[in-house]
Amino acid sequence: MTASSTPTRVSAAALRTFAAALLEKGGLSAEHAATTAAVFVWAAQRGIESHGIARVPAYLDLLDKGVANPTPDLRLTSSAPAAAVLDADRAPGPVAMTAAAAEAVARARACGIASVGVRETVHTGAIGYYVAKIAEAGMVGLGFVAGMPNMGYTGVKGPAVATSPLAIAVPASTEQASAEQASAEQASAEQASAEQPRPPLLLDMATATIALGKIRQARSSGTPLPEGAAATADGTPTTDPEQAVMPLPLGGAKGSGMSLAFELLTSVLVGAPIFAAYHSADPAGRKHRQNALLIALDPAAFGGADRFLADVGTTLGTLKALPATDEAAGVHYPGERSAATARERGAHGIPVAPKVWRQLAEAAARQGVALPATP
Amino acid sequence: MTASSTPTRVSAAALRTFAAALLEKGGLSAEHAATTAAVFVWAAQRGIESHGIARVPAYLDLLDKGVANPTPDLRLTSSAPAAAVLDADRAPGPVAMTAAAAEAVARARACGIASVGVRETVHTGAIGYYVAKIAEAGMVGLGFVAGMPNMGYTGVKGPAVATSPLAIAVPASTEQASAEQASAEQASAEQASAEQPRPPLLLDMATATIALGKIRQARSSGTPLPEGAAATADGTPTTDPEQAVMPLPLGGAKGSGMSLAFELLTSVLVGAPIFAAYHSADPAGRKHRQNALLIALDPAAFGGADRFLADVGTTLGTLKALPATDEAAGVHYPGERSAATARERGAHGIPVAPKVWRQLAEAAARQGVALPATP
Repeated sequence: MTASSTPTRVSAAALRTFAAALLEKGGLSAEHAATTAAVFVWAAQRGIESHGIARVPAYLDLLDKGVANPTPDLRLTSSAPAAAVLDADRAPGPVAMTAAAAEAVARARACGIASVGVRETVHTGAIGYYVAKIAEAGMVGLGFVAGMPNMGYTGVKGPAVATSPLAIAVPASTEQASAEQASAEQASAEQASAEQPRPPLLLDMATATIALGKIRQARSSGTPLPEGAAATADGTPTTDPEQAVMPLPLGGAKGSGMSLAFELLTSVLVGAPIFAAYHSADPAGRKHRQNALLIALDPAAFGGADRFLADVGTTLGTLKALPATDEAAGVHYPGERSAATARERGAHGIPVAPKVWRQLAEAAARQGVALPATP
Repeated sequence: MTASSTPTRVSAAALRTFAAALLEKGGLSAEHAATTAAVFVWAAQRGIESHGIARVPAYLDLLDKGVANPTPDLRLTSSAPAAAVLDADRAPGPVAMTAAAAEAVARARACGIASVGVRETVHTGAIGYYVAKIAEAGMVGLGFVAGMPNMGYTGVKGPAVATSPLAIAVPASTEQASAEQASAEQASAEQASAEQPRPPLLLDMATATIALGKIRQARSSGTPLPEGAAATADGTPTTDPEQAVMPLPLGGAKGSGMSLAFELLTSVLVGAPIFAAYHSADPAGRKHRQNALLIALDPAAFGGADRFLADVGTTLGTLKALPATDEAAGVHYPGERSAATARERGAHGIPVAPKVWRQLAEAAARQGVALPATP
């Protein structure tokens, strides 16, 4: 079962239970372990493998090395009704960000819009998850994260800024909160698909032209990189995956500017600068950490939630009805295909790649945790 | 003076007075004319010619044709402390957006963050101006605008979405509010430059790979367009400026997704969808209009304004000290070079291109307005 090259399919629920058990053995409380597992399994179910279940062994390592704090003292401070800062005390990103999203929603319900900054957390995982949580509450979610410099900046030699992502989620139906859940219990994904409410728009994009992982993939497969997508250590653009060490910013000055602005909007706003510390002489400045900012906007405060949801639906429907360049492929909005993947995987299980399955099995054996049931 | 191919230099103050006089003749109140003129002259002073003084004749035309309403009934509605919608009643963008920025700042001062949606305005001009106004108040400004579809969307034939911009401004000094003003009164731009406080970070970027204007420029100069930057009417990418009718989205799916998300965040949020109406059978859906959303975040609510400004300064200073790929060119943050241009033009006047000067002279003659003094 584990030696073949075909992935192992595991149900989302079983994978969540398993990942949570591993993370609890890694030192997290049961509640934090469940919260963290939910984020990785969400990404895995949507086909975002880079932020999926393979992150569990990586997180166990972060906990083991003391980069992530298993028993964080999370502290929320606020001096204004629509704003707060959550000091994460190096809590796992999923723990801090999930709490911040809930806080932003609660404050936006009262104020129309609200923002929660997250100070000194560790790998957030897919930030789409947190803005999707805001959308599940019927609100528009915006998310920004800043991390360690690993990307070029137009005009600079070497890695300068981070591939810091922007995420936007917009609810398209009052029912989308339970959609993926419901479909998991249905026998046929196709049948489920026909009955689904429209999934939210969910944009989750790095400010880089390509992901770091794509450079690694191109290196192992020996495929040239796209023109202008990556650079050598001194910042020279290259298509040679052997020479490439970092992605280049999306659209040059635009991606560079967004990444720098996101560092100011997150790290600097919450009082935990990463960029300036990273480029300082102090080696502590190069220690992994991330900061974030979540914003929730309540459509009820801008003219009505029902009207908003109806108009979002019409807008997305209009897009999908436009003439496609490839009729068979159709036209899609951000988040639509990953929602379809989530429905299919909800019905048939989440495929875990053999290499990842081996890593999980090793971790399970080490920690004395039972592997999840496979069909 | 007007027949040569050298631009005419006019002081910012004289250009503002002149543009305001023209706009007042176009039907705007003295106050609205001054507000609108300030936005165009700001862009002109910063070297953003596409949104500069050439927009004045274009705006007179919009007023003349009834697209812009010279006597709008601006109405602010709000049901939550940190959120409001300004119904612009087709007011010129500068009038509605300037009011919205002030409202967002006032509410953010009380709530920590605030957002004002702008419903049914007309050409906003450079949206950098409004977020810069928020930064002048010591706050972080975010701005989104949605307009008429004129750009491709990955997978769709023909213009689908708009080149809708995103703007971010972050104050870097407590004094930047008066910086450009002060320099205008100084004799030497070089001297002024040495004494300037650090200008704010100001990112103002369309979601397109290139501006529509660049396609027109390439057509008149017969220069091929960059690969992947523009497309023919049916959505096929082309480098031939004769065949190109629309820009392609920045980074394909990323720019497409941002533009669509911005339509939802602005037009749909404030109850005035553009995209769905534009693609409907109703010809009224193709009438020019724009919607926007401004967000102001008060650093005082996230851990302290002074600390924030100091850390922004350190971050921008760190960036500028990184090794440059071209030492002579140096390293720049968004908004830095346009601030330098503004200082130079503050000291030596704003160059008005001969063609634009002729248009202004014609409008001035028609309306009985005196041309501004030239050195």
